[in-house]
Amino acid sequence: MFNRVDHIGVAVEDIDASLELYERDYGMTLVHRETVTEQGVEAVLLDVGENHIELLAATGPETPVGKFIAKKGPGMHHVAYQVDDIEATLASLKEAGLKLIDETPRIGIRNSRVAFLHPKTAGGLLTEIVQPAQVH
Amino acid sequence: MFNRVDHIGVAVEDIDASLELYERDYGMTLVHRETVTEQGVEAVLLDVGENHIELLAATGPETPVGKFIAKKGPGMHHVAYQVDDIEATLASLKEAGLKLIDETPRIGIRNSRVAFLHPKTAGGLLTEIVQPAQVH
Repeated sequence: MFNRVDHIGVAVEDIDASLELYERDYGMTLVHRETVTEQGVEAVLLDVGENHIELLAATGPETPVGKFIAKKGPGMHHVAYQVDDIEATLASLKEAGLKLIDETPRIGIRNSRVAFLHPKTAGGLLTEIVQPAQVH
Repeated sequence: MFNRVDHIGVAVEDIDASLELYERDYGMTLVHRETVTEQGVEAVLLDVGENHIELLAATGPETPVGKFIAKKGPGMHHVAYQVDDIEATLASLKEAGLKLIDETPRIGIRNSRVAFLHPKTAGGLLTEIVQPAQVH
């Protein structure tokens, strides 16, 4: 069902300060940077093999990531699995009894199609399903 | 430096109950099960492409994972990156100013060699470096 870990989403207070760790110290390559206004985040993707690290900074304190950081501090925010057919995956997971945050896919970073699963039925993890715009 | 995400470590209250989610609902394949007495954990590895999910259950309440679950509940525990040369990686990270929990590698699951980085200098994430016993 899942091809691989697509990315790990990490909440950070400041993207550029965090890039000192991920680019300079860890040697990861920055491959994308995008502000997703409707979600209130500035996001960057770094390559680590075929997986990615997605750094997420809030555009304001009242956004989901802003509230997350105020409550829990910077750190792991979500895990995302890559799939070929997001509709089929969501149908299967719904049939299995999982609670979907997004009943239908929406557009995510780099024009991927994404949907989130509720942590309550996903083992305590905010979990994202990603169908990339291009297989990569 | 890092070849890929080796695994995501997930703290769970009960391994077998959690396998209903990861094996049955997510379709991941269980590939290893081990009790690491010195760390006070029962651990299983599931394949997701070339990455793994590592489920961790405490063998008692006074273990690190037992304390983690008491404080934060089940959920993401750590991220692990796979490397070819763990000594060279640790030397580089130490030179960069990162705080190492393990100054020298120790034996981890499936006879891998592992070392942890302190969350304080690793962006708030408990971070593990893994050199597998066999390249896989």
